[in-house]
Amino acid sequence: MENYSVCQLQKGMRYEGFLLVRSAEKRKDSKGADYVDMNLADRTGEINCKVWNWDPEAEAPAVGGPLKVRGTIQEYNGRLQLRVEKWRECTPEDPVNMNDLVACAPRDPQEMLAELRKTAEGFQSENLKRLTLGMLEAAGNNLAWFPAAQRMHHAERSGLLHHTTDMLRLAEGLLTVYPWLNRDLLLAGVIIHDLAKIDELKSDPAGNVADYTRDGQLLGHLVRGITNLNKVAEETGVTGECVILLEHMLLSHHGESEFGSPKPPMFPEAEALHWIDIMDARMNTMKSVTDKTPPGAFSERIFSLDRRVYHPLYGEEDS
Amino acid sequence: MENYSVCQLQKGMRYEGFLLVRSAEKRKDSKGADYVDMNLADRTGEINCKVWNWDPEAEAPAVGGPLKVRGTIQEYNGRLQLRVEKWRECTPEDPVNMNDLVACAPRDPQEMLAELRKTAEGFQSENLKRLTLGMLEAAGNNLAWFPAAQRMHHAERSGLLHHTTDMLRLAEGLLTVYPWLNRDLLLAGVIIHDLAKIDELKSDPAGNVADYTRDGQLLGHLVRGITNLNKVAEETGVTGECVILLEHMLLSHHGESEFGSPKPPMFPEAEALHWIDIMDARMNTMKSVTDKTPPGAFSERIFSLDRRVYHPLYGEEDS
Amino acid sequence: MENYSVCQLQKGMRYEGFLLVRSAEKRKDSKGADYVDMNLADRTGEINCKVWNWDPEAEAPAVGGPLKVRGTIQEYNGRLQLRVEKWRECTPEDPVNMNDLVACAPRDPQEMLAELRKTAEGFQSENLKRLTLGMLEAAGNNLAWFPAAQRMHHAERSGLLHHTTDMLRLAEGLLTVYPWLNRDLLLAGVIIHDLAKIDELKSDPAGNVADYTRDGQLLGHLVRGITNLNKVAEETGVTGECVILLEHMLLSHHGESEFGSPKPPMFPEAEALHWIDIMDARMNTMKSVTDKTPPGAFSERIFSLDRRVYHPLYGEEDS
Amino acid sequence: MENYSVCQLQKGMRYEGFLLVRSAEKRKDSKGADYVDMNLADRTGEINCKVWNWDPEAEAPAVGGPLKVRGTIQEYNGRLQLRVEKWRECTPEDPVNMNDLVACAPRDPQEMLAELRKTAEGFQSENLKRLTLGMLEAAGNNLAWFPAAQRMHHAERSGLLHHTTDMLRLAEGLLTVYPWLNRDLLLAGVIIHDLAKIDELKSDPAGNVADYTRDGQLLGHLVRGITNLNKVAEETGVTGECVILLEHMLLSHHGESEFGSPKPPMFPEAEALHWIDIMDARMNTMKSVTDKTPPGAFSERIFSLDRRVYHPLYGEEDS
Amino acid sequence: MENYSVCQLQKGMRYEGFLLVRSAEKRKDSKGADYVDMNLADRTGEINCKVWNWDPEAEAPAVGGPLKVRGTIQEYNGRLQLRVEKWRECTPEDPVNMNDLVACAPRDPQEMLAELRKTAEGFQSENLKRLTLGMLEAAGNNLAWFPAAQRMHHAERSGLLHHTTDMLRLAEGLLTVYPWLNRDLLLAGVIIHDLAKIDELKSDPAGNVADYTRDGQLLGHLVRGITNLNKVAEETGVTGECVILLEHMLLSHHGESEFGSPKPPMFPEAEALHWIDIMDARMNTMKSVTDKTPPGAFSERIFSLDRRVYHPLYGEEDS
Amino acid sequence: MENYSVCQLQKGMRYEGFLLVRSAEKRKDSKGADYVDMNLADRTGEINCKVWNWDPEAEAPAVGGPLKVRGTIQEYNGRLQLRVEKWRECTPEDPVNMNDLVACAPRDPQEMLAELRKTAEGFQSENLKRLTLGMLEAAGNNLAWFPAAQRMHHAERSGLLHHTTDMLRLAEGLLTVYPWLNRDLLLAGVIIHDLAKIDELKSDPAGNVADYTRDGQLLGHLVRGITNLNKVAEETGVTGECVILLEHMLLSHHGESEFGSPKPPMFPEAEALHWIDIMDARMNTMKSVTDKTPPGAFSERIFSLDRRVYHPLYGEEDS
Repeated sequence: MENYSVCQLQKGMRYEGFLLVRSAEKRKDSKGADYVDMNLADRTGEINCKVWNWDPEAEAPAVGGPLKVRGTIQEYNGRLQLRVEKWRECTPEDPVNMNDLVACAPRDPQEMLAELRKTAEGFQSENLKRLTLGMLEAAGNNLAWFPAAQRMHHAERSGLLHHTTDMLRLAEGLLTVYPWLNRDLLLAGVIIHDLAKIDELKSDPAGNVADYTRDGQLLGHLVRGITNLNKVAEETGVTGECVILLEHMLLSHHGESEFGSPKPPMFPEAEALHWIDIMDARMNTMKSVTDKTPPGAFSERIFSLDRRVYHPLYGEEDS
Repeated sequence: MENYSVCQLQKGMRYEGFLLVRSAEKRKDSKGADYVDMNLADRTGEINCKVWNWDPEAEAPAVGGPLKVRGTIQEYNGRLQLRVEKWRECTPEDPVNMNDLVACAPRDPQEMLAELRKTAEGFQSENLKRLTLGMLEAAGNNLAWFPAAQRMHHAERSGLLHHTTDMLRLAEGLLTVYPWLNRDLLLAGVIIHDLAKIDELKSDPAGNVADYTRDGQLLGHLVRGITNLNKVAEETGVTGECVILLEHMLLSHHGESEFGSPKPPMFPEAEALHWIDIMDARMNTMKSVTDKTPPGAFSERIFSLDRRVYHPLYGEEDS
Repeated sequence: MENYSVCQLQKGMRYEGFLLVRSAEKRKDSKGADYVDMNLADRTGEINCKVWNWDPEAEAPAVGGPLKVRGTIQEYNGRLQLRVEKWRECTPEDPVNMNDLVACAPRDPQEMLAELRKTAEGFQSENLKRLTLGMLEAAGNNLAWFPAAQRMHHAERSGLLHHTTDMLRLAEGLLTVYPWLNRDLLLAGVIIHDLAKIDELKSDPAGNVADYTRDGQLLGHLVRGITNLNKVAEETGVTGECVILLEHMLLSHHGESEFGSPKPPMFPEAEALHWIDIMDARMNTMKSVTDKTPPGAFSERIFSLDRRVYHPLYGEEDS
Repeated sequence: MENYSVCQLQKGMRYEGFLLVRSAEKRKDSKGADYVDMNLADRTGEINCKVWNWDPEAEAPAVGGPLKVRGTIQEYNGRLQLRVEKWRECTPEDPVNMNDLVACAPRDPQEMLAELRKTAEGFQSENLKRLTLGMLEAAGNNLAWFPAAQRMHHAERSGLLHHTTDMLRLAEGLLTVYPWLNRDLLLAGVIIHDLAKIDELKSDPAGNVADYTRDGQLLGHLVRGITNLNKVAEETGVTGECVILLEHMLLSHHGESEFGSPKPPMFPEAEALHWIDIMDARMNTMKSVTDKTPPGAFSERIFSLDRRVYHPLYGEEDS
Repeated sequence: MENYSVCQLQKGMRYEGFLLVRSAEKRKDSKGADYVDMNLADRTGEINCKVWNWDPEAEAPAVGGPLKVRGTIQEYNGRLQLRVEKWRECTPEDPVNMNDLVACAPRDPQEMLAELRKTAEGFQSENLKRLTLGMLEAAGNNLAWFPAAQRMHHAERSGLLHHTTDMLRLAEGLLTVYPWLNRDLLLAGVIIHDLAKIDELKSDPAGNVADYTRDGQLLGHLVRGITNLNKVAEETGVTGECVILLEHMLLSHHGESEFGSPKPPMFPEAEALHWIDIMDARMNTMKSVTDKTPPGAFSERIFSLDRRVYHPLYGEEDS
Repeated sequence: MENYSVCQLQKGMRYEGFLLVRSAEKRKDSKGADYVDMNLADRTGEINCKVWNWDPEAEAPAVGGPLKVRGTIQEYNGRLQLRVEKWRECTPEDPVNMNDLVACAPRDPQEMLAELRKTAEGFQSENLKRLTLGMLEAAGNNLAWFPAAQRMHHAERSGLLHHTTDMLRLAEGLLTVYPWLNRDLLLAGVIIHDLAKIDELKSDPAGNVADYTRDGQLLGHLVRGITNLNKVAEETGVTGECVILLEHMLLSHHGESEFGSPKPPMFPEAEALHWIDIMDARMNTMKSVTDKTPPGAFSERIFSLDRRVYHPLYGEEDS
């Protein structure tokens, strides 16, 4: 049996492969028997599936994880449907490539996590080291796969780490040009600036964001980041100016009140953090738009940029 | 010796009375002897004073408190100066009327404080009662005399209590018209909404605000109010929705991002708090402007209102 | 025959009940006979109706009034249709509850009207009394059922009176906190501020607004209110400052040029009127949104508020 | 005795000539005798004057009119002062050139007034003729000398007529290009659009505007123009669409809410009126700025234009 | 055979007439034979056409030109289709009225072009004459039929000339009122101000604009106009102030940065050009909206004007 | 004779040293003899100087260059004045440190210039190499000392090179993080983006900017940069997409219309250029503000940042 992507499936095909659970619900059929109605997806599309005669004691599969499934493609009311004959949850041994199933950051999450921790452990300031490591600790395991956004930039599995590690590298470039900046403070700000997105967004482990949380709606990640920092400071016993400097960097990193920061950046490291953040978001958006636009053509109007984007030929025409 | 206001003083007069210390500095004269250079003020003006032959061991008088002084009015370099012969700090027995010395709220601070506490003690919600009383406790003794602002509305001794108690009465009026509002939540929001101004402003005990604090500049009273609330919640062991509701009311009470609230009010009590706050501020400003403008005339352009204000004749012309 | 709401009707049912005329048109069938095509509605929905063999001399029923109808539910082109067998206009004896047919203010219109008149009659200022009563007189009978808006706040039968009487109660609360306000002037402003909405909107007697009038489009209720006031002043012979004060209150009650007021409020009673108006509109919107949102959930984005709204649990979770 | 301009006067000179009264106040000298303190001016400057031994029964000269004065130039506290020996009010026989004393429109006021009347009398629409002539009648004699503004464009004696007649000529040009416009309506709009500036501004007969009136502050000339029009319509018995069309043209001629028009122009003649108005104002400002700027140079930043203005060489350099 | 408009066509009709090519593509049918799929249109609508058995060597007809076609109206998939039996390109002898096929300017293009050239040839300034004629020369033949926009004002065949010649007439009216303006400079500015729209828009010869060009997207007609002018200046050897004056007029004619002009008009002729431009655009829009709206009614909201438009009765009701 | 800074000078001192000519004018004294009135300055201040008995044939010294002067400090009308006894222009042998006389970039201008040329020479794209080197050539010798602005960031001698070379290093950092960017295009954009400031500003060789030029006022450096680029493209015979890409990068590098860019950046390298530009400007401003603010204190409000800036203690307090 060949490997098909979801977008290649046709009526009557046999299918076996790995798919991601987008939604799953236990229901009863007309005779009162249990079945499960699921939407499974890979990166190319989504298909509705039925698993008949479900064990009444068993839960429906968890949303966000990959399954191994086998079955037949049928058509119902004009739409394709996978009738599942066999399925199981994946094991570490399964040759699943998450990047086939969902947009993923280009680097390994554990490697990126390790980079953040190593950077913090190298700080000369004992206080900033304790605060930053404490914040990473508090963020917990979800940090490994959390996306940076619902749409827009870095809306991908482990997008939060992708965004943060790219910003670390931008910050290193900046420190070369402006060596008078306080290195520990800038890097600490980069590492913690978006961690409270984990409190702000409802995401499944595949990086799909369903909505904002109550915290996200009523407070947002800037302010929740500050209360999280206060807890870590209390637990680690850190006091002094460095706490309020980081509080301010969290609060001001969106730069202006119309983008959610009630205070603009008021010292050099806060200013630098803001520009590194916006630059990485914008370059990521630009790349994903030009990737989808043929050379020599313009994209449609991109909502988050409020403009159309041109994909240059870069001298191909000159030769 | 008659009682003179500062604006009535003339060269050669003898003066005895109560004045407020606006600034005070110990210096050395040309012979190396200590003296104190002070600016003393009542509500009508300010005068420079010299106290010669100061005890080298003694500190200069504290800024913000009232003194009893006696001396002679002299002229130096074209400006009046009070040469102090005798002075002492005031005692509770002195017949000082603070309202002669500085703008004061029209009610007694302790009475207003008691009203806030009594309101909170009457809450049916045990959680809101504990949080509100905890916040009042944490605000400390300065709440008694703290002003609500440096300029604009309620920039007076005990102005913060004045503003808060008037808002409580507006809230009571609102609860009559909209009985479906949650009474405890609205009143708790009113009581705590501006308490962190004590962290935000540098004020002397007379209610004169010199500047913003580092906290006020880098975070502001909205966000500092939230971290204060989190501390009180941790100490009192209160958890649950009421904490985030109050956090949101603190964050959103300025209504819009351009006025410092990164989130607009998102439930009815937060919306009501915002309008009560702005209405009380505006009515207070309107009153102080019309008090200074003759009936039938227009004021100059008022910066905080961005308009001129008219003091109507209210039918006086019709008779 | 049971009582059904429109949303409960199904093919084949017999129906008898009271319904509101949303639209009604006399037409000719394929044989040249007259019939009437109507849309009838209650608060839960709308249904198309046919009354065959209409008397060629008779007009179609008036839009906005309730009818008593009897007939059968049929299906035509996949949509339900009521074939009317018998109908008549309602009489005062009919047990019609208007609130079942359309959104209505919670109080009786005549009672609210009487409250406005009584308030005006209690004014100490003879001039303001004459102007206010004259404006109420000029507004005519439509005031009893006129809505306050097409959408948004108080878009209901008698919504204009509902909005105005709630504002009167808010004003009374305000006068307790700020006793230095001119009572008669503030209350007169409240009563007349929106009366020219009757000139601005095309509404049927059920409170459904079809569109703006030519007056509403080209001038708006602020300016038309002013010319109406001038007519009343001329008729009642009132001159003097009180006329221009009320003109200004009409003109400025939207507060800012971007909301339609070319002048901001320039004296205390005009300022108070503006805030009472916006507060009542907002609280009414907040209530209707939270009424439709389950506790613990967020609404969709509300266009007029430019935000989502949260319906709190108010401590239900804490018990 | 030579003719001097005020800017040429020096200590010790004898002066005789015509000057305009800017302010005049009767006072008492140290011996209790009456004298008059005046500021007199021509177009080049202003000088303080004293007339000693004033007849206690006589009023001070009226502000805004020209006087014939004779006296000596003295110096007092470092500033020049004219000690008046003889003075009288001017008579029609005096060879006074108002344009030497104050900025004046370039055409004769009576000639311009006649042009307005003649234009209105030529209207084919009887209704528009009656309304326009009625409005000119109601404007009264002050229209002859009224300025169009306090600063900015046409801030000159008879500036209102200057502005209006130039707009009439612009409108004639427009009617050539767009013959489908309604001629009477457009010209009627031009003639009446700013007449209520007479109610809005406090001006002396020399065209110097001291301030806004209470009407101007609280309502403005757009809205007062509408109530004036309603009075004229009532007096002349004109009803129908043309009244509301003119009301709308008055209301919308500033084009946008941020410039004071709560409604934008909504039919072609209202649109045309708006652009003619702004164009004439701007060209007048441009001319007065370039007149004061040497060819080849830039002016300072002009507040009302929010830019610097360049006076071109227009080819002088090319030769 | 009668003459039908496209909107009158029905299934089974025989058709012969002139139609415009909106799109045309050579394809292969199921047997591999060539055919052409075209959309043909007149001013009233568009119809899909098939020409079977196309000569494999021949190109599809050019987009934008008129064809003479004969055939039968069929229905395919519920939509009308013209099966073309005979067709040919039009010749100058054909009695084609372009205005039946597409919106056209009301005057003859060659006549308008001649007017522009004659105006430029009459300039007293040799430099401005050479620059203006050079720019007209550089614009090339497309100027004859180029539209002024994709939508909004003057979106019609030869709309660019229509807009420019109407502006010339407005400018002549202006020069009467403000004779101190430099005539040659203002008229030169009018003639060249929009010529680079030819570089900015992709239009077919019928005046239908498909999109913006790469130049239009990345630079826009203001800046491309300036580089075009620099080329002409270099070719004609014109230097001096007049070049930068025209550069500035090109750059500033949209008036404000939010409408695309990085510099506001800074001398009188630039200011005049801006207002003439906006006035002609607005009056053209107003006319086309009122033409489509019945007298006494309001249009829908017009996007480019951000308002609804009223078509007055102009006194028809008064009689 | 000691070396004094201008701010240390006092009445009666003898002075000898190097100073910069800020202004210099030849005048005649009361006896008709020539003298020169100059303002000389170093980095700490400015002093007025008189050189009596000037050779009538000689010009006044050139503005912007350093002089060696000797003389005595006198006082005239309460202000210090240097009576020059001897002076001469500086020679290359003089031990003048320009950085004592005026703010200078921290690197040697020739070294920075060489870096720009070397970068361009390393381009793989022959076209971009020719355009960039051509633009550097066209900029001429003034590039060596030209400042980047009149105030704000890099307002210093050679500030334009300082800004450009720092941006080059930022760009190199970016290319590491985003290797998919076109290196030659980005670096070419950086090198040429501000070169037309040389056309925009009137600066003396010391880097003091007196005003904007006519070009700067009427067109600005964005648009003048584009016409300069077109000239270089024509001279070097370069055509193709790379020209319009650079045109767009010049036009869009301010990012938004409100900052002078009529088009926002529409491809990745243009976007990157914009952020590098703003980041370098902001970091340079932040540094100069914190350099002038004591640690632990806030600056005054900085106009170009619209905020106060805090100079952190960076852990000094924690020890």
